[in-house]
Amino acid sequence: MRLVTYSLDGTGDTTPRLGVQLDAQVVDLAATAAATGTELPGDLLSFIRAGQPAVDAARSLLRASGTGDRPAGAVHPLAEVTLHAPLRPGKIIGVGLNYVEHVEESSRSLDTDRELPDRPVLFSKPATAVTGPGRPILHNADLTKQLDWECELAVVIGKTASKVSEGDAWGHIFGYSIINDISARDQRRSGQWFFSKGQDSYAPFGPAVLTADEIENPLDLDLGLKVNGETKQNSNTRHMLFTIPRLIADISSGVTLEPGDVIATGSPSGVGAGMVPPQFLQPGDLVEATIQHIGTLANPVVDAR
Amino acid sequence: MRLVTYSLDGTGDTTPRLGVQLDAQVVDLAATAAATGTELPGDLLSFIRAGQPAVDAARSLLRASGTGDRPAGAVHPLAEVTLHAPLRPGKIIGVGLNYVEHVEESSRSLDTDRELPDRPVLFSKPATAVTGPGRPILHNADLTKQLDWECELAVVIGKTASKVSEGDAWGHIFGYSIINDISARDQRRSGQWFFSKGQDSYAPFGPAVLTADEIENPLDLDLGLKVNGETKQNSNTRHMLFTIPRLIADISSGVTLEPGDVIATGSPSGVGAGMVPPQFLQPGDLVEATIQHIGTLANPVVDAR
Repeated sequence: MRLVTYSLDGTGDTTPRLGVQLDAQVVDLAATAAATGTELPGDLLSFIRAGQPAVDAARSLLRASGTGDRPAGAVHPLAEVTLHAPLRPGKIIGVGLNYVEHVEESSRSLDTDRELPDRPVLFSKPATAVTGPGRPILHNADLTKQLDWECELAVVIGKTASKVSEGDAWGHIFGYSIINDISARDQRRSGQWFFSKGQDSYAPFGPAVLTADEIENPLDLDLGLKVNGETKQNSNTRHMLFTIPRLIADISSGVTLEPGDVIATGSPSGVGAGMVPPQFLQPGDLVEATIQHIGTLANPVVDAR
Repeated sequence: MRLVTYSLDGTGDTTPRLGVQLDAQVVDLAATAAATGTELPGDLLSFIRAGQPAVDAARSLLRASGTGDRPAGAVHPLAEVTLHAPLRPGKIIGVGLNYVEHVEESSRSLDTDRELPDRPVLFSKPATAVTGPGRPILHNADLTKQLDWECELAVVIGKTASKVSEGDAWGHIFGYSIINDISARDQRRSGQWFFSKGQDSYAPFGPAVLTADEIENPLDLDLGLKVNGETKQNSNTRHMLFTIPRLIADISSGVTLEPGDVIATGSPSGVGAGMVPPQFLQPGDLVEATIQHIGTLANPVVDAR
């Protein structure tokens, strides 16, 4: 399923709801369930916490109701809804330097080592950094002259993971999405990335979460990013240094991952800081992060002084 | 008010409740309110979100009911309850290198600069790292041989803070508590502190949150830490490099602080890594972090392989 968090345009009601996107339509899960006398959660985090029974119930509900006989008010044209960030994660764990060529460009342009890291380089972004598709990336020129992009595959955790082996890791994944790991390169503080990567709007997230079964091989997905239509990043998740199961095993060896937590699995090369000369985001720019099968997460950059 | 999150011993009911500690008693706020036909939230995060009206209501309720005439079941001897972490913060922002002498010892023993930072050095710990008073600090010898302590004044945010000036910062504080900023020094990853400081149980928090009015000057509080009764840290919050209002102004310039968020304001000198030779925590140790007026947060270190 392609799960989206949406609100209905033109109704004055901005309550985020949980929907399944089917082609150019959004089917409201809770409303469809209610029409058959059953219940499904109205938001994605509750849906994930409800586990496999909820996923199975949603699937059979969608199979049972053909396009024609869905309840009135439960189906909306995609063009008439606004998509929001899929959920507010309990935590977002970022992985630095997880693509070989990005390690190289970072060592040239930033303050990182040239050697490949021997353990995943972990940092975090707060939930307040999350913003939805189409929502502005805030450019505050009083704080940064080096606002940069990073297109990343987001892994959404489905089941609590503590001390999980690589072999068991796949079973703890709910699905996949896109995170644009925005950084103010000049706001690293004594090397720490939190303020550089954790500011409001620095984690555009979406446009949808695809359940894990929809992605045949998450370690073979093209991913890339354009600024104003010009390709800046273009790679494939097969070039990750630490694969997804390795990341889950490593993180969960010490940090419990909970349903709805997100791992931003790292950026390929092609970030602005690595360009010669460096290129950074400016108000008016449009940033589009695309991952195969998942879609495109597009966000404008706006002046936010 | 000295607010605690507690559960009743010997009842089999481990539901955390919100209480006010008065000497050696805990008065349940929701139960006391219910007895007078009013309502107060049953947990600290909801209480903070309810704002000044809830605080005022709680205060007048406690004044109105003398010790004798509090409703049955609303008052418990402190000895018959278990204290928990006061709340699960949306985010915990840590401040590194915020005491002058700690900057010096860190530059000798860790990989940080010798110069005083010109901006607060910010990092974060996830909510999953939080543990309560008396609860174990997990020592996993497979992951670390360098488990270290840091006694820190915790500032609990009361009102949403975005782009707040230093002058207005005080008004956004709900209260104060203690965080022991536990670190596995050997789990820094390419300099990033997240995995070193973010593991489960690495944020002992409590034993109480004192509302801001209870602390005359938070920038003049003795704070210290003992391991097995031996003093390791002994300082005063007046030695902070960046004061509390400065931290709130700096963080909120880019990162919105929300009710219940916590700022761990940095550790004074006397951490284990700075000792000659270095000293680290071992299973069996007892760590006691004490801050004047607030109390002592004591946690045993246990083997958790």
